[in-house]
Amino acid sequence: MTLQAAAIFKLLAAVRERQPLVHNITNFVVMNNSANALLALGASPAMIHSSDEVEDFVALSQALVINIGTLFSEQIAACKLAAARARAVGVPWILDPVGAGATPYRRAAAAALARLGPSVIRGNGSEILTLAEQTQSGSGRGVDTLHGSEVALDAARKLAATTGAVVAITGAVDYVTDGQRVATIENGHPLMTRVTGLGCSATAVIGAFLAVEPDAFAATVAGLAVFGVAGELAAERSPGPGTLQVALLDTLYALDEATFVKECRCREIAC
Amino acid sequence: MTLQAAAIFKLLAAVRERQPLVHNITNFVVMNNSANALLALGASPAMIHSSDEVEDFVALSQALVINIGTLFSEQIAACKLAAARARAVGVPWILDPVGAGATPYRRAAAAALARLGPSVIRGNGSEILTLAEQTQSGSGRGVDTLHGSEVALDAARKLAATTGAVVAITGAVDYVTDGQRVATIENGHPLMTRVTGLGCSATAVIGAFLAVEPDAFAATVAGLAVFGVAGELAAERSPGPGTLQVALLDTLYALDEATFVKECRCREIAC
Amino acid sequence: MTLQAAAIFKLLAAVRERQPLVHNITNFVVMNNSANALLALGASPAMIHSSDEVEDFVALSQALVINIGTLFSEQIAACKLAAARARAVGVPWILDPVGAGATPYRRAAAAALARLGPSVIRGNGSEILTLAEQTQSGSGRGVDTLHGSEVALDAARKLAATTGAVVAITGAVDYVTDGQRVATIENGHPLMTRVTGLGCSATAVIGAFLAVEPDAFAATVAGLAVFGVAGELAAERSPGPGTLQVALLDTLYALDEATFVKECRCREIAC
Repeated sequence: MTLQAAAIFKLLAAVRERQPLVHNITNFVVMNNSANALLALGASPAMIHSSDEVEDFVALSQALVINIGTLFSEQIAACKLAAARARAVGVPWILDPVGAGATPYRRAAAAALARLGPSVIRGNGSEILTLAEQTQSGSGRGVDTLHGSEVALDAARKLAATTGAVVAITGAVDYVTDGQRVATIENGHPLMTRVTGLGCSATAVIGAFLAVEPDAFAATVAGLAVFGVAGELAAERSPGPGTLQVALLDTLYALDEATFVKECRCREIAC
Repeated sequence: MTLQAAAIFKLLAAVRERQPLVHNITNFVVMNNSANALLALGASPAMIHSSDEVEDFVALSQALVINIGTLFSEQIAACKLAAARARAVGVPWILDPVGAGATPYRRAAAAALARLGPSVIRGNGSEILTLAEQTQSGSGRGVDTLHGSEVALDAARKLAATTGAVVAITGAVDYVTDGQRVATIENGHPLMTRVTGLGCSATAVIGAFLAVEPDAFAATVAGLAVFGVAGELAAERSPGPGTLQVALLDTLYALDEATFVKECRCREIAC
Repeated sequence: MTLQAAAIFKLLAAVRERQPLVHNITNFVVMNNSANALLALGASPAMIHSSDEVEDFVALSQALVINIGTLFSEQIAACKLAAARARAVGVPWILDPVGAGATPYRRAAAAALARLGPSVIRGNGSEILTLAEQTQSGSGRGVDTLHGSEVALDAARKLAATTGAVVAITGAVDYVTDGQRVATIENGHPLMTRVTGLGCSATAVIGAFLAVEPDAFAATVAGLAVFGVAGELAAERSPGPGTLQVALLDTLYALDEATFVKECRCREIAC
């Protein structure tokens, strides 16, 4: 069935109205972009990283975004403290396991965080495959032989089952699953892969939707649909990735219901 | 009385001519933007953070900017070393107490830095209220019950008295006080709140003016007026926050005297 | 003789086709820009900094970029580990000794890294002069009395001899030398000095060319020519530094052979 674009837009309207405080512990490459994406959307971002204050701050927030892009040991510690506190006080949080498969250090950190009860995990196919592997015991498959979105979707379902999180795989087509329901979002544009950190911005945007929608599956679909539509519209009028980055923020800021409903291509598919 | 826009523009001309070296210890979200704002203005920014070199570097600089946005313990230490050295060698410095009231850790750090002799403190209303509270002993008021720019202005006057700094509160109207004189700047634009770190950029710009104008009150008014006029002109031709960020740098770079004098709305008000 | 612009463009085509993985350990100011410049060019950037994973990651990469802009002790350690591993596994790497002369700490760090076998060192005149001084024993000259690109070129030749690296001095005219050959690139535009980190982006772009061209001299000339042409074309249509930053990425992305060959002004000069 086709998901209701009008219902998704209502969630965007809620973000704009409530301006939820979104606590980000994210990487140094995309901090500025993520903050600007959240501001353009209508949310109120804060980038707070020190172990000396993340527990206090997350308790004041409506959602938490954890992104391991430029990982280092103090930051892993801060992420763990923040995630634990978020769970304790009922603040939803999303994990972006950037480059999860690249090194043993990164695999271990991503898997450890995935076990701390995220509401959502968003990654590309490789990241989700790696993470599904790491969080299952006794699995001997290497991730290098696994390809394609169908295999990644299978991994996503398993990862959802082992972690209790909604899992999103983003790519040419985005998939979202809670282990039972599966939705696809067919918005976005290839030029978006030529701007650094747009996946990270998508994660941050989902964070803002988690702050206003208790159903993490619905919030994730909504965040990816809004971000995908804005990115697609921006890319269509951009001669290159420099302009796209600017136009994406303008489009997120100005996106209206008629345009969104016309462009949104997301639907729930049979499992 | 109306402050002389022509005199303010003379200070901008001095920044452009002398290209002062401005040392920034600032947060990871806005480093790029602050450097670009200073370069567009005509100053020479440097982002130098390690405790191993901040004391050497600040002594070579014409001004120091300290911003606690993405605070962590090593950075607080570096800020304290740099501030102490700046004071010892006569380099003016400005403090931006980002989110001062958000956590106990942040409150303490901001208050400790405010006691180290900044030439200027720039914050929003909440930050100045928090800081005025923290630097006064024996005060039992909570900041949560205080609202409005008049109350913040009262706090700013007290903060100026306890720290010896010129204090600036930025918002829809900016206020600057040295405890006795009070100036207002009515430039700027609401869209500026949708771009991350423009307050931090304003702080950096004031830093550049401190490098060419010994009167910290005049330097602060000048920095906020130039930044406010540029932001307002840029916002007026921007469809959203992405374009604004780009147009602001172009406008700071190209701002001419006739335009500035026409647009500048700052005046000294009765205390 | 005039270097073959068509041959340089072939290297750009190789970058676009092979999409080499370029590992960056770079400063916090320019991480986003460097990643975006590499993506616009057609390479695949990764920003990986922790000592816990840089050795694993560099071994997967086709080139390594080390930039000391916002130096601190953990990062120097990570740079040393990555450089040693790069050399051991045959991954070419480039050093950007940002602000090498500014403080004793920075001078020492830059010199220590220069001794670890970089394929290329790129800096401005002052940085190359400082580094040539630091890596030679028994030299008593202060760098403050040395000026001009000819003197810097002499220092670059010596630095190439002591380190075995190709050395590039960028400025109004760029010079590249391996100690014997010398090439000049006369592209670029003065407005580029008003955008932070474009030198750092040039270094990252050279890194991408090192990944596809084993002759480090040819790769360096190619990287600077492509970056200089793109910057020049972008600056010519930019009213200020904000627009330039955006237009540079669009231009790198869209640069075609006819335009490049027409605009490229690089040649090998007599030693």
